Amino acid sequence: MKFASYIKNGTATFGALSGEGLVTLAARLPGIETLRGAIEANRLAELGAIARETTPDVSLVEVTFLPIIPEPSKTLCVGANYRDHAAEAGKTEKAWPGYFIRVDDTIVGHDMPLEAPQASEQFDFEGELALVIGKPGRHILESEALSYVAGYTCFMDGSVRDYQKRCISAGKNFQASGSSGPFLVTADEIPDPSTLSLSTFLNGERVQHSGLDMLIHSIPKTIAYLSTIIQLRPGDVIATGTPAGVGHARQPPLWMKPGDRISVEISEIGRLSNPIIAGA
Amino acid sequence: MKFASYIKNGTATFGALSGEGLVTLAARLPGIETLRGAIEANRLAELGAIARETTPDVSLVEVTFLPIIPEPSKTLCVGANYRDHAAEAGKTEKAWPGYFIRVDDTIVGHDMPLEAPQASEQFDFEGELALVIGKPGRHILESEALSYVAGYTCFMDGSVRDYQKRCISAGKNFQASGSSGPFLVTADEIPDPSTLSLSTFLNGERVQHSGLDMLIHSIPKTIAYLSTIIQLRPGDVIATGTPAGVGHARQPPLWMKPGDRISVEISEIGRLSNPIIAGA
Repeated sequence: MKFASYIKNGTATFGALSGEGLVTLAARLPGIETLRGAIEANRLAELGAIARETTPDVSLVEVTFLPIIPEPSKTLCVGANYRDHAAEAGKTEKAWPGYFIRVDDTIVGHDMPLEAPQASEQFDFEGELALVIGKPGRHILESEALSYVAGYTCFMDGSVRDYQKRCISAGKNFQASGSSGPFLVTADEIPDPSTLSLSTFLNGERVQHSGLDMLIHSIPKTIAYLSTIIQLRPGDVIATGTPAGVGHARQPPLWMKPGDRISVEISEIGRLSNPIIAGA
Repeated sequence: MKFASYIKNGTATFGALSGEGLVTLAARLPGIETLRGAIEANRLAELGAIARETTPDVSLVEVTFLPIIPEPSKTLCVGANYRDHAAEAGKTEKAWPGYFIRVDDTIVGHDMPLEAPQASEQFDFEGELALVIGKPGRHILESEALSYVAGYTCFMDGSVRDYQKRCISAGKNFQASGSSGPFLVTADEIPDPSTLSLSTFLNGERVQHSGLDMLIHSIPKTIAYLSTIIQLRPGDVIATGTPAGVGHARQPPLWMKPGDRISVEISEIGRLSNPIIAGA
């Protein structure tokens, strides 16, 4: 089942894909108003069953997509997690996943504009697979980690390289510089995420391509490690890193600029696409 | 006026200090249920006036303090921002404030226990002044930055040093490893935060002491810089860094352990104090 968070008639809501449209699911079960709330209440399967029996109430073009979880407890992003990207970035492989945090205002939904910063020309793309946590966990065993995943989505970890050299938080936290969505594909449909493949397209040209089997730190290892540090909560978003091909590693560098369109496509998951505009 | 977020009779609420007690202020004005909400609605002054005319409804010992803003849009923490601490940490001074992000679950309220991690013995203290943003702003001028501050509070940026060497996000984001509060002292009472002085006490012994005039990057400069990157929102918490004296720079190192008590005291602001327990 594919769930999404979106605005319909001016109201933030959520629903599931059904045929060519969406079945809006907010308030179909008592007290469940958001996708995060549905995950917290462990009612995605019930909601999926409702969606399968219901005629879509809105078409995809009538909604404004929100980030996959508009206000998660946290968004944790693993860095330098593909061998080829770590090599192009001059990073050595480490024994543990390095990560940074993105705040909510840095992430927009599918088809919403990403903002090329006023302060920098070095606005770079990083196509990624992200997972959404399905149940609370601390000190999670690697062998049990995949059972903590509600589902998977596409993620654009837009990065401002000159600011990133100053500090990672700055380069990864420009306003509306990243995106997630459009759909959360539930984990039952993806028994082994390492079989997926990811491509990033800038203005239709493929600029990144890799299998998810090329991760240095696997998804189970990453979940286990992060849970030694902090409680993972339902709705938490964990982005798994980007493969080689990013703009700053090219000669000459390839930056995103207003008028461009950036897309991340992942097999079995879908396609997240965003236009670039000049930032406020 | 001094505001606080706290739990009273099992319910999260907020109020203001009045004499020896607290005047609970949730729902005193329509729709204002939290301190963040009061700041967003720009009604702190009105609420302060109500508190001054009202008999306290609860004593300080009857409440459980929450983080100063329990769920801010973001908590941004400037690192290596005192010359003496930058020197003891072996960091060179940079032209811009470096910062990291702490997620909500890392911060507890006054007098609530900090959790010494299971995964590390290197649990270190960093006493800090934090400010809370009072109105939305982007591309804020340094000359106008202090007008964006709602008030100031004490902040314990508890840090796990071996994990911090792996990556800054890990070392600064252990569960319940930091704290804020107990009170937000409104900015009208602190016209110039550089005149304040800060001390940290571990089990009653002073381990850090500095004037806030020793910041490498002033509060106005920090606000202006952060706002070039992202929209600042009412209730955002910005911690301003710690002075020299931290445990990992000592010979031998001085770590916090279960049974200890750590306190941060700032002139005109108050004292934030937390016991240390063994983490889950």
